[in-house]
Amino acid sequence: MSELSTFTTATLVISCPDKVGIVAAVSNFVAQRQGSLIESNHHTDIEQGWFFMRNEINVDALSVTLDKFREEFEALALEFDMVWHVRDNQVLQKVVIMASHASHCLADLLHRWKSDELVCDIVCVISNHENLRGMVEWHGIPFHYVPVPKQDKTEAFAKVSDIVARHNADCVVLARYMQIIPPDLCSAYAGRLINIHHSFLPSFMGANPYRKAYDRGVKLIGATSHYVTEDLDEGPIIDQDVVRVSHSCTGDDLVRLGRDVEKTVLARGLRYHLQDRVIVRGNKTVVFSQ
Amino acid sequence: MSELSTFTTATLVISCPDKVGIVAAVSNFVAQRQGSLIESNHHTDIEQGWFFMRNEINVDALSVTLDKFREEFEALALEFDMVWHVRDNQVLQKVVIMASHASHCLADLLHRWKSDELVCDIVCVISNHENLRGMVEWHGIPFHYVPVPKQDKTEAFAKVSDIVARHNADCVVLARYMQIIPPDLCSAYAGRLINIHHSFLPSFMGANPYRKAYDRGVKLIGATSHYVTEDLDEGPIIDQDVVRVSHSCTGDDLVRLGRDVEKTVLARGLRYHLQDRVIVRGNKTVVFSQ
Amino acid sequence: MSELSTFTTATLVISCPDKVGIVAAVSNFVAQRQGSLIESNHHTDIEQGWFFMRNEINVDALSVTLDKFREEFEALALEFDMVWHVRDNQVLQKVVIMASHASHCLADLLHRWKSDELVCDIVCVISNHENLRGMVEWHGIPFHYVPVPKQDKTEAFAKVSDIVARHNADCVVLARYMQIIPPDLCSAYAGRLINIHHSFLPSFMGANPYRKAYDRGVKLIGATSHYVTEDLDEGPIIDQDVVRVSHSCTGDDLVRLGRDVEKTVLARGLRYHLQDRVIVRGNKTVVFSQ
Amino acid sequence: MSELSTFTTATLVISCPDKVGIVAAVSNFVAQRQGSLIESNHHTDIEQGWFFMRNEINVDALSVTLDKFREEFEALALEFDMVWHVRDNQVLQKVVIMASHASHCLADLLHRWKSDELVCDIVCVISNHENLRGMVEWHGIPFHYVPVPKQDKTEAFAKVSDIVARHNADCVVLARYMQIIPPDLCSAYAGRLINIHHSFLPSFMGANPYRKAYDRGVKLIGATSHYVTEDLDEGPIIDQDVVRVSHSCTGDDLVRLGRDVEKTVLARGLRYHLQDRVIVRGNKTVVFSQ
Repeated sequence: MSELSTFTTATLVISCPDKVGIVAAVSNFVAQRQGSLIESNHHTDIEQGWFFMRNEINVDALSVTLDKFREEFEALALEFDMVWHVRDNQVLQKVVIMASHASHCLADLLHRWKSDELVCDIVCVISNHENLRGMVEWHGIPFHYVPVPKQDKTEAFAKVSDIVARHNADCVVLARYMQIIPPDLCSAYAGRLINIHHSFLPSFMGANPYRKAYDRGVKLIGATSHYVTEDLDEGPIIDQDVVRVSHSCTGDDLVRLGRDVEKTVLARGLRYHLQDRVIVRGNKTVVFSQ
Repeated sequence: MSELSTFTTATLVISCPDKVGIVAAVSNFVAQRQGSLIESNHHTDIEQGWFFMRNEINVDALSVTLDKFREEFEALALEFDMVWHVRDNQVLQKVVIMASHASHCLADLLHRWKSDELVCDIVCVISNHENLRGMVEWHGIPFHYVPVPKQDKTEAFAKVSDIVARHNADCVVLARYMQIIPPDLCSAYAGRLINIHHSFLPSFMGANPYRKAYDRGVKLIGATSHYVTEDLDEGPIIDQDVVRVSHSCTGDDLVRLGRDVEKTVLARGLRYHLQDRVIVRGNKTVVFSQ
Repeated sequence: MSELSTFTTATLVISCPDKVGIVAAVSNFVAQRQGSLIESNHHTDIEQGWFFMRNEINVDALSVTLDKFREEFEALALEFDMVWHVRDNQVLQKVVIMASHASHCLADLLHRWKSDELVCDIVCVISNHENLRGMVEWHGIPFHYVPVPKQDKTEAFAKVSDIVARHNADCVVLARYMQIIPPDLCSAYAGRLINIHHSFLPSFMGANPYRKAYDRGVKLIGATSHYVTEDLDEGPIIDQDVVRVSHSCTGDDLVRLGRDVEKTVLARGLRYHLQDRVIVRGNKTVVFSQ
Repeated sequence: MSELSTFTTATLVISCPDKVGIVAAVSNFVAQRQGSLIESNHHTDIEQGWFFMRNEINVDALSVTLDKFREEFEALALEFDMVWHVRDNQVLQKVVIMASHASHCLADLLHRWKSDELVCDIVCVISNHENLRGMVEWHGIPFHYVPVPKQDKTEAFAKVSDIVARHNADCVVLARYMQIIPPDLCSAYAGRLINIHHSFLPSFMGANPYRKAYDRGVKLIGATSHYVTEDLDEGPIIDQDVVRVSHSCTGDDLVRLGRDVEKTVLARGLRYHLQDRVIVRGNKTVVFSQ
């Protein structure tokens, strides 16, 4: 069974100050143009007075083109002071994956992509190691080896930035990429650069979280997918999960058990992102998970 | 912190054939009367062509009375062929709890009620045993002892029906009540009679599910809260959960571990029901869980 | 079904440097005296070179008294440099529970105790508020109101220490007791003073963990039962668990959802402790959970 | 970090009628030959009067060869009427994987094997479809295409049996192999033939479990790894797990979400099996999971 919808769809995502009548205005707008709502979610953050909305619209019977739809929506957006976009779901998003030596997250993402579970275009994989080239190329995806020397990383990241830019990436995924991303890349891809951290944040930020977890004697370990900001491991959280461990687990067992959580949490986070289910505001996310 | 909203709210629940423009029509209707949506959920069952909606409305600034709102909504409801209701959340629902010998579900519900987590009016407890009277009466709730003799249960259930009717109950909860409810009571309270079954349905229907689970050697046991229909353990499921067990668990351990799941799943199911988050259609439910 | 064993049992708990032959020596010792192992667990921490063992022994056919058993075991213990004890499970442990205003953990423990799920003797409840007196006394348990003034807490904790000592408590449980325990009480009850912290430690140590979790936008919240040491929220962890939350949860929702986790994690931690399933070494625990 | 132990180890697995002194006898036997216990688990099924034991032994300092160890153990085994074996963990077990069209379980097992998480020798993959050949061969594993015609499957399964026998397989894994295994193969590989069923057994036995789950409206779906017996989906359960679903999940969503559970539950079951952590008795298993 395919994940690709049998409809032609577009996704309208909105975030704005809360006010009476937004849902009415937006759903009127869509209905008047013969758009039919397949899935619609909204959320009001009462404390902040902020409104969030995601509409997945069947556009098969839409009375206007998507460009016209966008053009006409502008007036409404202005009225309610919206941050918004309309995504044409027929156009696959371009994703760059970055990895280091560990293969589990990358292998998992590639398999999900190959079996149509992750609907996107993986344009290339960038790694500071060579060991995953075979796996990537077997999937028919270009592999770029960009070593990152300890002394001076500037050139390496200039190359990375260049590859990402050249591929016109919509989204960059750090699939256990073990290098710190420089600030300019973070800000260029703000809200589109996803990392998996191998702990239940904010526990065990920084390096060696499994060792720290082992030393603290926690009874659950976890993983966190989040948008990358300049503050390491402090960005908006998309998803988290945990797995039970016990005194009988060695440090290696934590690493092994953690891998399964990392894979799932990253894949889920990326899927939500690609489906425009995540709306960032400040350092928090609204995730209209299914 | 109290669970009681600081707003005056009403909940509008709708189910109808799917069609373009329902959300627009309903949200227009609400906005035109100055109702502000605190939480709004909808779902389209594409396979069945059916639409479900729940709106929690802040009615503090509503330009009409709730009765007028209902009266005026009738036209819209007819147009879209809706099954619908508007609940005034200032009026507490009347709940009758039925229990037998086991105390855990009852104690849990009473504590949640006493600490304002279950916002309702528990009008009485009915039991076929005397042992829980003290606990119930300590909470200031009337306790009715209605023994159910094995030979002829007709009279007992006539009494039960009478008590429930006399209290004008909106909802009846079977908190491990170990008697089969007669068909007339099932149909009189269809969609308002909630049971907790101590297995992960449809596994282990009927009596002694923990024994059956023990004998089958399952590695998880569960519980299911569901609406009661004439077909024992076959009614629409509201919520389910499980807990991990192992070979080292005796039958008694399963019973003990299961109790925690039963309590949680029943409390969650009842809470969803009282907040009008559950919409039944056929033998399935839409649950707009938070 | 009762939790009380149909056997007379004793529990032998051992921790010592690892060496070939410990299991053989201990199980020989027990078998030679006709003790039969109902449950036996051991664990070797290879990194630390340390051995941990728990034996639950059916002593119905034991050829010596338990005192004689202890006396004779001393030689073996010396040989292997063991920290050890033998608990006679016919003697109920004396437990003091301390609570503040929140009722959920206390109510949960009292119900588990009343239904024979927590096999111990709850000798009294101490609280710095009066509101839970009725519930405690309804269970037939003495309630001590010891207010803790902000300015000077010395006298209050002298009173607390006195009550605990007078009751000859084996174990003290902080069931959401919202005061910091003074160092002398911590050290007097080291390894026998159990707290529930309302976060997934080491996340959100200190005050207001739910508020911190809300502000950080985590997608799971948790609770941790641990032994109390002088370092607030830093003591050895016994058990932890989490529950999924989302953007739609208000701060109050986190508090409500967290309560269920707190209750379970505290009850489980206390049960493990009472059954001598927890062995502390350094700042970590071995938990021979069932 | 590698999963391969830094010790040379052997695993001794025992099951026999319960009696005083078994642990003492076995641990004496091991200690007298300078075997050191790395991990040791036992379990007594009191209802059945049966004893189960698994010892992972560091044999680096063993004073006899493993063959001599086995030979000498025979006397003890006779005395206690044991079913037992000693596995030399330096000898990799030979595993045959069978798959059909779906790739997720196979891809997952291959990746875990390639990254040393599943320590075994995958000798070949057999499939009734050709589509997974590329993936298998990329891993350097022989791929056998054995189509199974609907009319007469005898010849196909003769071929399968032949391949399995020729490879001298210790264990056969059905990684979503969508054909019913004939009785003779089931009995030839009793206790060594592992299947993943895509439901939480005993719910939804037989074909199309996700469709059945969808129609019943369950709120959790699951997967079960179990040993295959002649009674379809009735064999001893090794492991199970579940994932939460909701009304918003289509049938395709259940299939997608279920895949993650299937992968994990099969990999965990196989790992337990390869590490001799599973002991079958009757239709139940003892699983000394870590």
